[in-house]
Amino acid sequence: MSQKIGLFTGTFDPMTLGHLDIIERASKLFDLLYVGIFNNDQKSPLFKTEERRAMLEETLADFDNVKVIVHEAELTVKVAEKLGVTALVRSVRDASDLAYEENMFYFNLEMSGLDTLLLMARPELKALNSTRMRELYHFDQDLSDWLPEPVKRALEAKRTSDGD
Amino acid sequence: MSQKIGLFTGTFDPMTLGHLDIIERASKLFDLLYVGIFNNDQKSPLFKTEERRAMLEETLADFDNVKVIVHEAELTVKVAEKLGVTALVRSVRDASDLAYEENMFYFNLEMSGLDTLLLMARPELKALNSTRMRELYHFDQDLSDWLPEPVKRALEAKRTSDGD
Amino acid sequence: MSQKIGLFTGTFDPMTLGHLDIIERASKLFDLLYVGIFNNDQKSPLFKTEERRAMLEETLADFDNVKVIVHEAELTVKVAEKLGVTALVRSVRDASDLAYEENMFYFNLEMSGLDTLLLMARPELKALNSTRMRELYHFDQDLSDWLPEPVKRALEAKRTSDGD
Amino acid sequence: MSQKIGLFTGTFDPMTLGHLDIIERASKLFDLLYVGIFNNDQKSPLFKTEERRAMLEETLADFDNVKVIVHEAELTVKVAEKLGVTALVRSVRDASDLAYEENMFYFNLEMSGLDTLLLMARPELKALNSTRMRELYHFDQDLSDWLPEPVKRALEAKRTSDGD
Amino acid sequence: MSQKIGLFTGTFDPMTLGHLDIIERASKLFDLLYVGIFNNDQKSPLFKTEERRAMLEETLADFDNVKVIVHEAELTVKVAEKLGVTALVRSVRDASDLAYEENMFYFNLEMSGLDTLLLMARPELKALNSTRMRELYHFDQDLSDWLPEPVKRALEAKRTSDGD
Amino acid sequence: MSQKIGLFTGTFDPMTLGHLDIIERASKLFDLLYVGIFNNDQKSPLFKTEERRAMLEETLADFDNVKVIVHEAELTVKVAEKLGVTALVRSVRDASDLAYEENMFYFNLEMSGLDTLLLMARPELKALNSTRMRELYHFDQDLSDWLPEPVKRALEAKRTSDGD
Repeated sequence: MSQKIGLFTGTFDPMTLGHLDIIERASKLFDLLYVGIFNNDQKSPLFKTEERRAMLEETLADFDNVKVIVHEAELTVKVAEKLGVTALVRSVRDASDLAYEENMFYFNLEMSGLDTLLLMARPELKALNSTRMRELYHFDQDLSDWLPEPVKRALEAKRTSDGD
Repeated sequence: MSQKIGLFTGTFDPMTLGHLDIIERASKLFDLLYVGIFNNDQKSPLFKTEERRAMLEETLADFDNVKVIVHEAELTVKVAEKLGVTALVRSVRDASDLAYEENMFYFNLEMSGLDTLLLMARPELKALNSTRMRELYHFDQDLSDWLPEPVKRALEAKRTSDGD
Repeated sequence: MSQKIGLFTGTFDPMTLGHLDIIERASKLFDLLYVGIFNNDQKSPLFKTEERRAMLEETLADFDNVKVIVHEAELTVKVAEKLGVTALVRSVRDASDLAYEENMFYFNLEMSGLDTLLLMARPELKALNSTRMRELYHFDQDLSDWLPEPVKRALEAKRTSDGD
Repeated sequence: MSQKIGLFTGTFDPMTLGHLDIIERASKLFDLLYVGIFNNDQKSPLFKTEERRAMLEETLADFDNVKVIVHEAELTVKVAEKLGVTALVRSVRDASDLAYEENMFYFNLEMSGLDTLLLMARPELKALNSTRMRELYHFDQDLSDWLPEPVKRALEAKRTSDGD
Repeated sequence: MSQKIGLFTGTFDPMTLGHLDIIERASKLFDLLYVGIFNNDQKSPLFKTEERRAMLEETLADFDNVKVIVHEAELTVKVAEKLGVTALVRSVRDASDLAYEENMFYFNLEMSGLDTLLLMARPELKALNSTRMRELYHFDQDLSDWLPEPVKRALEAKRTSDGD
Repeated sequence: MSQKIGLFTGTFDPMTLGHLDIIERASKLFDLLYVGIFNNDQKSPLFKTEERRAMLEETLADFDNVKVIVHEAELTVKVAEKLGVTALVRSVRDASDLAYEENMFYFNLEMSGLDTLLLMARPELKALNSTRMRELYHFDQDLSDWLPEPVKRALEAKRTSDGD
């Protein structure tokens, strides 16, 4: 029985409880789950790639079959091939997400036979996304209901140092 | 490493190449995949449940980790619990499918913690559904492009005998 | 230069100003436009097929290149083949209409190479449909803003005679 | 019987098999079909306007009633008026396309009475769009399944010269 | 300053926590809020109209400006006119709800100038609807997470008596 | 009976008849309605914030319970708290608007308990938006069918002076 390997990618800037829920659920579907962080330091992110990697690793420390990697600027299918991935994992919240995923699904399947499985967001986590988190951070709002513990702490530290 | 078990249910009246594609793709994601036929003989189906089971079993004979079962009139979560299922597999073609699946997903998760994974239909198979197949059969159209071999044969036999 | 022939089908029970607008616009796109009424007297319609045909013919009397026909219970592609139709004309009001039309489009194209063109409903006519008209008629509402003159008259006559 | 003239516009950077299919189908609906290339050399396109015109003309050489034009920065309704266009032709792939087209349709109809007809993309060509093609080109992928022959050749030549 | 009066209608068979949330939120927007139960005993409901009225009245006892009424088989605009209603209140969960509401909104506005305001369902209550509740009741599931207290009790009593 | 206060915000660059219709309808639902203009002079608007405020005030002069304010760069919930707002008013035209509003609704409700009510655009005003108005202005089109009188005059004056 061959090993089933999943890959879930994102920018995770910052990681939210929405990401954590998908990773937790996906970890039960695969023998090994890679979580790939896009390396996009150039777009003035909230956190640097290495900071995001540290937060993800701390948050996911108890998931034995989850491995965090950094995903350089290359096609996801290429990363997947190197890692021997069985299928991509994507989260879907609404019709607009679905339309986007259908397009990517088609090209990934055509280019390398790579399949994609969609996990629906839980209703109560559906509104969460990193862009809104960054926006609310800039408006100095409390984000603690929507973030994993390590991200919460990193954000508080950042707020203190940014405010100096 | 625990065994990953999937469950894909449907009426399969008749099974199409769209169903076959989802089953083939899902069989690669799980160690064991159950394909559950809803037992609904009462609604004047095209094929009886036992005929559908025979066609599915013939069509899926080469898939070693796929097992066809008949799903009596009970909640899918109950069937899944008895079989030790890791996640349901559902096919999604458009925004309307997604809205339906989101509702079912919520209740399955709430009632028994059962997760659902969605596989997107391939573009060229997206239009296929059993209802349209039955309708075109009644208008005496050639359905051979859209059906697995055993279903094609069963339908031709049926057409001959109905026409007698 | 070969003649371009269109076919626009419907139940027209009753015809609305929305239908009239589509027919008028489609009549400018084709050399000849067939308007096909589905013959479905069995479903307790508001008007009998022959009554609907009379109303359509009176309403469309000034459109020289429009011809009203009755469409028996057979596949539209078969009717189109017999009439030498270049393309079907369909009206589309929203995403749900589009999903339905995409499915029909696929099968018509696959079965006989017949193409479909969509005309978008004008915003102010988008809400009109025959089902709502029948419902409002049963609640004894004034429908005169939404119906062509001959349909309006027929409905008033009907109301008087039904009320006897 | 007056001549029916269509206009299908786009950036065509690059033209895909999706564009070709729409043009082929639209050419059967009109006596004369204009294909208008938006002149947008300023946005660092993959191909210059004149290169795109050459590729379109070569690809469409066998369509006797199709004429390629370059569409300067002006409203499409103005171009259509000058050319005596009967209706615009637009391709629609999903609900999001439809929402965009409905808005344009409204303003074109209000400003000059110009009608729009939509052709649905074939399922197997639905995922194709120029943006994805440019992106995959930059990742050095093989695009040959999705492009007309002359575009394929131009792209290979470009790849060789860019790689020098 | 004239009094603002709202009307929220439904079948409430049974009332869910989703209905309760909309009623609570709507009660803050209006000076007086009518909650209208459609009288449809003929469709073999789970609860009779009078039973539903009793449950709604008990559930809503603490809302001083909410009044439960029974809505006979007539157009909602007629009911609204008699009650001096300022606007209808409707709940919207997804794109399909919105399309339905837009159609009703248009006719209500055209027929009597009656406006409609939409309240979005809270994410965690979005999946709730009476049809699913009845279905899960028939499969003998525990619905207590989704129902107001008086409905919960009525359902338990019913289950006991149905099971005798 | 406490006073009901609404808040409708936007850029209003320029205000259209669509905005006016929503404001008129919302003014009937609340005892007091604030119309908040986002102060975004930095994004090269068509009109400066103060010009927009003057046009809105002139257009809305006859609405006794409507008050125009300028909304500085801060979260809408903060503005709403200071003004004692009962609910936000938002206009919704299609599924894409709804998805956006659902996300904002969730965060406003979570952050401060602030509710949102949606008013559907009238069909004939649905296509109007400020972006299209600015675009058509730049193409020198007549916008007079879509704008309130004071905006029309301001735009004509602007056109004359820009053209000098």
